Amino acid sequence: MLPDEKPLLSIEAIKDAAARLAGLAVYTPLLESPLLNARLGGRLLVKAECLQRTGSFKFRGAYNAVAAAGGRPVVAFSSGNHAQGVAHAAQLLKTPATIIMPSDAPRTKLENTRAYGAEVVLYDRWTEDREAIGGRIAQEQGAVLVRPYDDPHVMAGQGTIGLEIAAQCHEIGVVPDSVLAPASGGGLIAGVATAIRASFPDAELRTAEPAGFDDHARSLAAGRRIAHDGTGTTICDALMAPRPGELTFAVNSRLLAGGAVADDDMVREAMRIAFRYFKLVAEPGGSMALATVLAGAVPVAGRAVIAVVSGGNVDADLYAKVLGEDAAS
Amino acid sequence: MLPDEKPLLSIEAIKDAAARLAGLAVYTPLLESPLLNARLGGRLLVKAECLQRTGSFKFRGAYNAVAAAGGRPVVAFSSGNHAQGVAHAAQLLKTPATIIMPSDAPRTKLENTRAYGAEVVLYDRWTEDREAIGGRIAQEQGAVLVRPYDDPHVMAGQGTIGLEIAAQCHEIGVVPDSVLAPASGGGLIAGVATAIRASFPDAELRTAEPAGFDDHARSLAAGRRIAHDGTGTTICDALMAPRPGELTFAVNSRLLAGGAVADDDMVREAMRIAFRYFKLVAEPGGSMALATVLAGAVPVAGRAVIAVVSGGNVDADLYAKVLGEDAAS
Repeated sequence: MLPDEKPLLSIEAIKDAAARLAGLAVYTPLLESPLLNARLGGRLLVKAECLQRTGSFKFRGAYNAVAAAGGRPVVAFSSGNHAQGVAHAAQLLKTPATIIMPSDAPRTKLENTRAYGAEVVLYDRWTEDREAIGGRIAQEQGAVLVRPYDDPHVMAGQGTIGLEIAAQCHEIGVVPDSVLAPASGGGLIAGVATAIRASFPDAELRTAEPAGFDDHARSLAAGRRIAHDGTGTTICDALMAPRPGELTFAVNSRLLAGGAVADDDMVREAMRIAFRYFKLVAEPGGSMALATVLAGAVPVAGRAVIAVVSGGNVDADLYAKVLGEDAAS
Repeated sequence: MLPDEKPLLSIEAIKDAAARLAGLAVYTPLLESPLLNARLGGRLLVKAECLQRTGSFKFRGAYNAVAAAGGRPVVAFSSGNHAQGVAHAAQLLKTPATIIMPSDAPRTKLENTRAYGAEVVLYDRWTEDREAIGGRIAQEQGAVLVRPYDDPHVMAGQGTIGLEIAAQCHEIGVVPDSVLAPASGGGLIAGVATAIRASFPDAELRTAEPAGFDDHARSLAAGRRIAHDGTGTTICDALMAPRPGELTFAVNSRLLAGGAVADDDMVREAMRIAFRYFKLVAEPGGSMALATVLAGAVPVAGRAVIAVVSGGNVDADLYAKVLGEDAAS
């Protein structure tokens, strides 16, 4: 970076976002379990972002981006948590919002997005081009497109999670050795890493991804953006973006140590651990960082490791099925 | 009360407890759901005390009481959350603890109590007298008995929840109209009511109990301690004490407006609402205040109502079964 080049994402931008979100975003607790710590021989701290408004961290970045639109209508594409985040942010900011969602999106997510007051436009994900639909709406309404991750305002909003983690670590006298967050496009970890590094320059930062959808891990190792092979399956519906974002990768490739990966069985175990030890409802993708830690991606013994549990929007029947499998032990 | 009579429980004692618990007890969030609020036409705020250390509010009062024992060994009777609270408090304070538990207590609760380092003494609840066992241990070890509710230190510890609620309400500009908490012996609501009243003198305070186990509701109506009839059943294993405590009732009969009651079906619905809207794992008894609000015990429309969700120690199989029933709608 040249000396006078403005960084994509600065700690100042994150602090501005925190001021905007004060009193609106839930200041989520950083939880730990003495019983689980005893099993692991170290400290595992969980940032409970599933308790955030709309049930996921996405509200933070969405609110910051919608606020930056300055009252112009907004439009977004999403089948899930970003849809709800943008819809609720627009509702709070009294801004018209159109959310373009696939017609086969989960019913609860469609209903919730409408309940937050957004107009939902459905498209067929096999035959229609959501980019074209979005472009038409943006042009007709003069609307601003709120991207799910490749947007400096969105990254700054997600970074407020890292600011809170840093403040909470200072309060309890913890110096984090590793910090992990689930990654799809990479906006969450980009924000978190920027904020954590400002307080804890030696903390090791990693993405967490499902096995087979490890485009961040591969890209960070290669030093350039490469896609995952996209042939596998995963229960982590929120973590299936094909490759890292352009802007997020510019941040992440500079700050992260690499990626961590775990399979669906470990994700299910992480959901059970979140239930049993933390009393948190975590969705599959939201449990990904916890899953990679339990899988041994980073050592916990004698260290302090932080996992962001990023969302809790999971259907009751899937959740009951996961709990009904082998008990967490 | 005579002018120079020392009150059983003062706001100063609660503030002292808060100072003792600072940095140890989780400062649990006060959560609300815009979607649920829209359905109810008012504000329902949930104090997420299931996120407390040991999975229930009991840690707060236990820690305050064990600290007051000044290093002497402690002994307690409990089949559940009080056992874990005392065991973990004693572990943190490096105090020997003996917990007398029924031999048919849930395996998880026995294991956890031992994992916190307490000595567990089992008794047969049909043939043995736990009071006699406790008396013998207290005499042999010079141990201090930590009662689950009828103890001013315990009530003061639980009162720190009310202090936090009051501070959180001030932060978000809410004046609570009603505050409800589950009641078994009545220590939680005694502490909460004392703390809330110091900040919000007009708030209406109520116990929440299972139908058929409504000894507080009956006692508050009668103005004297009376037992529930004890012939029914409930899934709220934590809320089956036969009558209000003597000390707790002295506080509660002065401060509370009355009791609220709901049946087991509404408790199950409250557990599903906590899952869906708040991403919280709530145990049956921990959901009781939420259940009474959903049952219409106090109006929410146009008001601000606070329900304490007091614990999350529920077995996975029961939880999965409750989720599998009619979806929260």
